[in-house]
Amino acid sequence: MTTSIMKRLLLISNSTMHGGGYLEHCQDNIKAFLSTTARKAFNSFGYDLDGIHEKENPVDAVRNAEAIFIGGGNTFRLLKTLYDENIVNEIYKQVTQDGVPYMGSSAGSNVATISINTTNDMPIVYPPSFKGIGLVPFNINAHYTEPDANSKHMGETRAQRINQYHEYEDAPPVLGLREGCILHVEGNKATLEGKTNAKLFVRLGKEPVEYEPGSDISFLLNV
Amino acid sequence: MTTSIMKRLLLISNSTMHGGGYLEHCQDNIKAFLSTTARKAFNSFGYDLDGIHEKENPVDAVRNAEAIFIGGGNTFRLLKTLYDENIVNEIYKQVTQDGVPYMGSSAGSNVATISINTTNDMPIVYPPSFKGIGLVPFNINAHYTEPDANSKHMGETRAQRINQYHEYEDAPPVLGLREGCILHVEGNKATLEGKTNAKLFVRLGKEPVEYEPGSDISFLLNV
Repeated sequence: MTTSIMKRLLLISNSTMHGGGYLEHCQDNIKAFLSTTARKAFNSFGYDLDGIHEKENPVDAVRNAEAIFIGGGNTFRLLKTLYDENIVNEIYKQVTQDGVPYMGSSAGSNVATISINTTNDMPIVYPPSFKGIGLVPFNINAHYTEPDANSKHMGETRAQRINQYHEYEDAPPVLGLREGCILHVEGNKATLEGKTNAKLFVRLGKEPVEYEPGSDISFLLNV
Repeated sequence: MTTSIMKRLLLISNSTMHGGGYLEHCQDNIKAFLSTTARKAFNSFGYDLDGIHEKENPVDAVRNAEAIFIGGGNTFRLLKTLYDENIVNEIYKQVTQDGVPYMGSSAGSNVATISINTTNDMPIVYPPSFKGIGLVPFNINAHYTEPDANSKHMGETRAQRINQYHEYEDAPPVLGLREGCILHVEGNKATLEGKTNAKLFVRLGKEPVEYEPGSDISFLLNV
């Protein structure tokens, strides 16, 4: 994968924070991210938003977009729709070749990565592949959370699940974005924004590393 | 799907209960379930267990099994392995035609159903299909749990995820097996065993129903 100089991404862990409205926790980041491209008002933030599901030709809609936003939902259904509408490659081209800013939250952050192998969602439909748009060469685990020490629930922890993924030697690093955490990419530079740490799982047997907001994690673009 | 008179299943929500050992919470159910077929000692319960991964020919191993047990693990990896080893149909045949008892816990319960669409696991590998062995004509959600009222985590609740699945009109009912819950099938009779309730999600818009241990839920075999 070649990293485009022009590529611009804003990948948000979650759409809603406890006690806040939709995208409220990251509205300043969105405004700063989109300020140079958007013309009209998209909801309360001052921008205009067209739903691609309302478009007759989704491929054209992607081609003509000034910016692309994919929000939350079920990751499997979302990725299947992107494949069904033939826009996976089109989004990749627009973002990496034409510098169209891509913004995703939750499932929209997952599908932007190399694959959806580390989504938390239920596999309610079978997409033709788990391969994502490939805008970054690693995986994201959105809504990353540590186990509740008081819980008696015996399901695997998030970290255990990511370790299962890393039992496959060719599995890329997984960036756990806690709620409130945002990954901002400008070309070859990747920075953490938001209010919470991200936790990076590089590979099995390597201790995961915490990164605070403001951290430069550009090395991840070249894994 | 035709329901076999001979079919015998023991589908357990979870392998381990808080504070207990592996399969300890259901050892009485297992002993009762296997007592008529097993000859030797399988671990501490008094039965002998051969690992299919140690067999040169997994298909033959299934054909020669006196009983089949599939434990926990990652559901995607497990189902992919069953397909890779060509034993999905073989297990189906053995259980439905020859009356070989099938016992599953957690992922092993999921793959026994019509599909793995309602697993909680992370999709770390891409199986050739989400279709399960099809021993029951509905889905199971193992480790079923209600949301923690004190949590600030914004991820979907288990019930919300199951409702997403039921947005597809052809999606079958989903039986949520809480930890400690066991589904026991003898031919056309399905009974809940164990210590906890199961919660049945029939379809979107229909209130889910709680079933206590001891409940006869045989109607689910004919959906």
